[in-house]
Amino acid sequence: MSNPFYKNYSPFKISEIFKSLKLQFSYDNLDIDVLDIKDLVNAHNAEITFFHSKKYSEVAKKTKASFCITTNSLKHNLPTGCVPIIVENVLVATSIVTSKFYPDSVNDDFDVSAINIHETEFKEKVRYGKSVLIGNNVSVGSNCSIGHNSIIEKNVIIGDNCSIGSNTIIRNTIINNNVKILDNCVIGKHGFGFFPNNIKNLRYPHIGIVIIEDDCEIGCGSTIDRGSMSNTVIGRNTFLDNQIHIAHNVKIGENSIIAGQVGIAGSSVIGSNVKIGGQAGISGHLKIGNNVEIGGGSGVIKDIPDNTKVMGYPAKSIREFLKEKK
Amino acid sequence: MSNPFYKNYSPFKISEIFKSLKLQFSYDNLDIDVLDIKDLVNAHNAEITFFHSKKYSEVAKKTKASFCITTNSLKHNLPTGCVPIIVENVLVATSIVTSKFYPDSVNDDFDVSAINIHETEFKEKVRYGKSVLIGNNVSVGSNCSIGHNSIIEKNVIIGDNCSIGSNTIIRNTIINNNVKILDNCVIGKHGFGFFPNNIKNLRYPHIGIVIIEDDCEIGCGSTIDRGSMSNTVIGRNTFLDNQIHIAHNVKIGENSIIAGQVGIAGSSVIGSNVKIGGQAGISGHLKIGNNVEIGGGSGVIKDIPDNTKVMGYPAKSIREFLKEKK
Amino acid sequence: MSNPFYKNYSPFKISEIFKSLKLQFSYDNLDIDVLDIKDLVNAHNAEITFFHSKKYSEVAKKTKASFCITTNSLKHNLPTGCVPIIVENVLVATSIVTSKFYPDSVNDDFDVSAINIHETEFKEKVRYGKSVLIGNNVSVGSNCSIGHNSIIEKNVIIGDNCSIGSNTIIRNTIINNNVKILDNCVIGKHGFGFFPNNIKNLRYPHIGIVIIEDDCEIGCGSTIDRGSMSNTVIGRNTFLDNQIHIAHNVKIGENSIIAGQVGIAGSSVIGSNVKIGGQAGISGHLKIGNNVEIGGGSGVIKDIPDNTKVMGYPAKSIREFLKEKK
Repeated sequence: MSNPFYKNYSPFKISEIFKSLKLQFSYDNLDIDVLDIKDLVNAHNAEITFFHSKKYSEVAKKTKASFCITTNSLKHNLPTGCVPIIVENVLVATSIVTSKFYPDSVNDDFDVSAINIHETEFKEKVRYGKSVLIGNNVSVGSNCSIGHNSIIEKNVIIGDNCSIGSNTIIRNTIINNNVKILDNCVIGKHGFGFFPNNIKNLRYPHIGIVIIEDDCEIGCGSTIDRGSMSNTVIGRNTFLDNQIHIAHNVKIGENSIIAGQVGIAGSSVIGSNVKIGGQAGISGHLKIGNNVEIGGGSGVIKDIPDNTKVMGYPAKSIREFLKEKK
Repeated sequence: MSNPFYKNYSPFKISEIFKSLKLQFSYDNLDIDVLDIKDLVNAHNAEITFFHSKKYSEVAKKTKASFCITTNSLKHNLPTGCVPIIVENVLVATSIVTSKFYPDSVNDDFDVSAINIHETEFKEKVRYGKSVLIGNNVSVGSNCSIGHNSIIEKNVIIGDNCSIGSNTIIRNTIINNNVKILDNCVIGKHGFGFFPNNIKNLRYPHIGIVIIEDDCEIGCGSTIDRGSMSNTVIGRNTFLDNQIHIAHNVKIGENSIIAGQVGIAGSSVIGSNVKIGGQAGISGHLKIGNNVEIGGGSGVIKDIPDNTKVMGYPAKSIREFLKEKK
Repeated sequence: MSNPFYKNYSPFKISEIFKSLKLQFSYDNLDIDVLDIKDLVNAHNAEITFFHSKKYSEVAKKTKASFCITTNSLKHNLPTGCVPIIVENVLVATSIVTSKFYPDSVNDDFDVSAINIHETEFKEKVRYGKSVLIGNNVSVGSNCSIGHNSIIEKNVIIGDNCSIGSNTIIRNTIINNNVKILDNCVIGKHGFGFFPNNIKNLRYPHIGIVIIEDDCEIGCGSTIDRGSMSNTVIGRNTFLDNQIHIAHNVKIGENSIIAGQVGIAGSSVIGSNVKIGGQAGISGHLKIGNNVEIGGGSGVIKDIPDNTKVMGYPAKSIREFLKEKK
C-alpha cells in the first residue's frame, strides 16, 4: 500500500471510528488513539486493519494491528492482541474508515492549489506553454517541457527529459525519465471503484498512485486511473497509442506495445514484451503473461500464459480462431 | 419535445415557409403567421407539424396543427382544419422548417457569449479554477465547483453540490444535484444526426437537451450528445466510467453502472439497475430492460428483456455464449 | 511524399550521414553534399533514397538518386550512378537519416511558437474564443471560427467557412473549406510508428500531414494522426462521429459516414460512400472498397471489395453473419 501523497488525518480515537461505522461498542479504552489503516501484513500496534475473506486467515493470525474490521465468522482467526470490530460488510466499513484517515483520496474535485507556472520556481527550469498550472507538492526534473493549458495538479513527481503535451491533466503520479505524455490525457484520477447502492453509490478511497517508468510514451486522449489500495504501473519502455483506458491497479510490464483504443479493466496484470492490437479489451483481475500477443479487437476474459498469441472474443489461440472463422 | 433553451425566431409567414421548401403553393392566405413547429400531438392552432409514416395515422387524425408537412399518400388522414403541405421527403422538409424556427440548434460553433467566471455573479458562490468560462443563461446551485479551463456554455442549469472537472465543456444541459462530471468531457453537443447527401450532407436541428439526474457520475473523456427531437437522459445515481459515448436521444434509467469505453447509439433506451461491461456497444433504437447485465465487449443488436444477462456479438444469453465458446 | 511543412536541414556531407549510421565507409568524395531523402521514384541527383524489399527491384533499377540505403543482397539492382550504402536494417537506417534531414518531424513537443490570437493578424478576420493560440506558418480563410482554448500549432492551413471547436489542437494539417472540427480533438500529431527495441524504442519521423477535404465534420474527442511517409486524408463530405481514431497514412474517400468510437489502423485505405457502424475496427494496411457497409462492432482484418455489406469479427458477409448467429 504505497502512499506517498495523501495526508493522513490521524490520530482518531477508537470511539470516533465506532461512531463513523454507526456501531455501538463496549471497549474498555474508548480514548485510545488509532494512527493509520493498513492491510493485515503491514499494520502495526495502534493501527487498524481489515479481514474480509478466509483466504487471508493465515495472514490474519499474525497481524500486529491493534484493531481489525471483520465478521463474526472470521474473528476467531485474529490473535488475542487484536480487537475485532464486527461489521456486516467489511469492505464498506473499511472504505468508510479509510476515508476518515485519507479524506483527500475520495474525491477528485479540481486542485485549488494549482497556480500559473510563471508564479512558481519551475519558470526557470521547465520549457512551458501558455496557461500551464502547477499544484502543491510537484517536482520536475531537468530538460522537461509542459504544453499549453496542461495542469500538473498536486502530488506529481516528473523525472528528467520528459515531455508533457497540451491540455493534459496529471495528479497523484510519479513519472520517471524520458517519458512522453501526449495531448488531452488525464493521468492519476481515481478509478471507477465504488460500492453500488440504490440510494446512493458509495465511492471508496483511492490511496494508490500512477507510476510511469522510464522511456514510456502515452498517446493522445488516454486515461490512466490511479490505484485504490495498490498502484497503477506502466513499465519501462512501454508505448501506448491514442485513446487508451488503463483502469485502477493495473500493472503493465516493460517493452509492451498497446495500440489505439485498448481498454484494460481494473487490477489486471500484463507482462513484459506484450503486444495488444487496437480496440482489444482485457477484463479485470486477469494475469496476462510475458511475450503475449493479443489480436486487435479481441476480448480477453481469462488469464493468458506466457508466449501465447490469442485473438477473438473470448480470446483463444490465434491459430484456432482463424481456422474456426474460415 | 422539451425545448427550454433554443430561441424560437417565429413568427414566419406561411409564404416564407413555402419559399424555404422551394414549393410553389397556392393558398388563400399566404400572409398568415406560423408560430412554432411541434409534433402531431403537441401542435396547436397557428403551428405547423409533420407526418411521415402511416403508423402515426391515428394521431394525425386528431392533430390541432394548422399546417402539416406530409406526402400525397398520407394527407387524407389529416383533419379538415389542417392544411397539408406536400413534399417529397417529409423529414428533410421538417428539418429545414425546424432550422428556420430554431437556427441556433443546428450548429455548435463555440459560444461567443462565454466570459470569464470572475466577471460574473458566480464568482461569489462557486469554487472555480483558472480560466473558467460561463455563457448566457446559466445557473449554478450552492456548493458547486468548476475545474480549470472548463467552459459552461449557454443554456446550462447546474443544481446543488455538483463538481465539474477541468477541461470539460457543457452546453444545453440540465444537471441536477450531487452530480460529478470529471475532466475532459463534452456534454450537450448536437448528435451525429444528418441526412446523407453526396453533394453536401444536411444536418438536422437538435432541439433536445441533456438531462443528468441526481447523484450521477460521468467519467473522464466522455461525450454525451443532446437529443434531436427528444432529450438525452442519464437517470439518478447512474455512474459512467471514462471514455464513454452516449449518443443523442438515449435514455438511461437509475442505478445503472457503465464501464469504460462503452458506446450507446442514438435513441436507445436503457433500463434501471443495468450493468454494462467495458467496451460494450449498443446499437441504436433498442430497448434494454431493467436489471440487465451486458458483458464487457458485447455488441447488442436487438432488444433485451428485463432481468437478463447477455454477452457476445451479437449479444445472447451469457450461459449460451460461454457454452458455445468452450 | 508530400512534405510542405517540415524544414529540410540539408545539405549534409555524405561523410556526416555515414557517421550518423555508425558506418565506416570508403568513398572517394566524402565531402559531397546530400540535399534530401526521397523514395526510389522521386529521388534525384545529390539525393539519397532507400531500397528494402525486392518487390521494388524494378523501380530501384531506374532510380536517379546518388545514394541508396540498402542491403548486400539487394544492391545489385541499383544503377551504376547510384552508390549503395549497406546497412543491417534499411528501415531503421532510413529513419535515422530522415530524422537528420527533418528533425522537427520526430517529436511532437508543444509548439513554443504559438501565441495568443489577439497578438496576430487573425484577430481581425477570425471569430475566436478565449485563450486561442496560433503558431507559425498558419493561414486561415474567410468566415472561420475557432473556439475557446483551441491551439492551432505551426503548419496549418484552414480554408473558408470552417468552424473549429473548443479545446482542440491542430498541427501539420491542411483543412479545406466548410469543414467543422468539434471539441477536444487532436489533429496532426505523429502516428504510433516506431521500431520496437528493448533498450529503447526508436521513433521514426512522420513527415506526412493530415488533409481534410471540403465539407467534412470531425466529432468531439477524435484523433487523426498525420502520415509517416505519405499523408492521412479525409475525403470530401465525409462525417466522423465522436471519439474516433484515425491512424497515420489512412485515406478515406468521399461521402463516407463513420459512427462513434471507430478505429482505423495505420495505412488502410477506405473508399467513398462507405458506412462504418459504431466501435468497428479496421486493421492496418487494408483496402476497403467503395459503397461498403461495415456493421457496428465489426473487426475487419482483410480487404473488402466494393458494394459489400459485412459484419462480425472477423467481418464477413452480413447475411452469412446473421444466419450463423441465429
